[in-house]
Amino acid sequence: MAVNITKQGTRRLRVLLDMDGVLSDFEGGFLRSYRAKYPGEPYVPLADRRGFALTEQYSKLRPDLEEKAESIYEAPDFFLKLDPIPGAIAAVKEMVNMKDIDIFICTSPLNKYSHCVKEKYMWVEKHLGSQFIERLILTKDKTVITADLLIDDKDNIEGVEPNPSWEHILFTSCHNQHIALPPPRRRLQSWADDWKAVLNSKHCST
Amino acid sequence: MAVNITKQGTRRLRVLLDMDGVLSDFEGGFLRSYRAKYPGEPYVPLADRRGFALTEQYSKLRPDLEEKAESIYEAPDFFLKLDPIPGAIAAVKEMVNMKDIDIFICTSPLNKYSHCVKEKYMWVEKHLGSQFIERLILTKDKTVITADLLIDDKDNIEGVEPNPSWEHILFTSCHNQHIALPPPRRRLQSWADDWKAVLNSKHCST
Repeated sequence: MAVNITKQGTRRLRVLLDMDGVLSDFEGGFLRSYRAKYPGEPYVPLADRRGFALTEQYSKLRPDLEEKAESIYEAPDFFLKLDPIPGAIAAVKEMVNMKDIDIFICTSPLNKYSHCVKEKYMWVEKHLGSQFIERLILTKDKTVITADLLIDDKDNIEGVEPNPSWEHILFTSCHNQHIALPPPRRRLQSWADDWKAVLNSKHCST
Repeated sequence: MAVNITKQGTRRLRVLLDMDGVLSDFEGGFLRSYRAKYPGEPYVPLADRRGFALTEQYSKLRPDLEEKAESIYEAPDFFLKLDPIPGAIAAVKEMVNMKDIDIFICTSPLNKYSHCVKEKYMWVEKHLGSQFIERLILTKDKTVITADLLIDDKDNIEGVEPNPSWEHILFTSCHNQHIALPPPRRRLQSWADDWKAVLNSKHCST
């Protein structure tokens, strides 16, 4: 169980926040850069995105576009320059000041890590402050991190742990909005959605 | 509980390996670089190292040496060029091929992450192969990672989780060799020590 008892006997809630698609606008940043670099090539409008893996969809559009798509997010400055998802920074700053709650940013870097890993630290420092980089966890496998909640836009999160401690809240993104989640799985539609109610539901259930 | 049941009903063991001081020779690399850069300055021989925080001991030697010490491990190429701890690479390669075991490298980056984070990925790729970077977890707080064992040279590992799932095996290093561990805490003296017995003790205890 991830719920802790403080010295005062209060339960602490632990929340993991994914980065790309939850805090930083990977899809929007990708499309803007792709169209700027390849103005004559076909592209997938955000409304038509389906499936977490962006390159799979570009590859189906035309096989050689997979490599072009990869070149966008493997380029220097791509991760650093991603805009925050609307409302994300304000929500995190509010969340981190809430009582009896521990927040971590939990993100999976690219295998081609040359720019990605450092820029993820830079992005967090730029938007949330240098103290917050201590809350950053880089891992390809999120199932081994214990928490009450994982807010993530990837619909299917797997790893070596078959029974992760967290409840996965699917953060709505262009690529997952058409997925019908089987109950009792829950979504957060955006940062304008009632994220406090989601957090409170875990406080109450412990 | 970190122990998993596979489809065949076998329990899988999860082991976290710290990087600096367990896989990579941070202390040796530091002293060599420090003496090369500051040949006229006093230094702490490895046999005299006490306490995990290297800069604290240098600061006590002479206050201005703290900054000089920091400049060594914050420099480009410092982490990349660390030698492996004797026997570490062979042990990890053997461990990763053992049945029903999952290995992760679990390391805390410097707050000054400019070179450190990328070079930790490069070091793992260089010494263990590109597949192994998927097993790398960067986190300042190791208490939130679930496992059966954490092999780490830091004597006191704390974080938000008051009851981590792992047993911490103290990996002997120059800076911790004089610490008397209260029972039932255990050490691994080096990679020539019987690490398989430590792993087996967890398999048997589950």
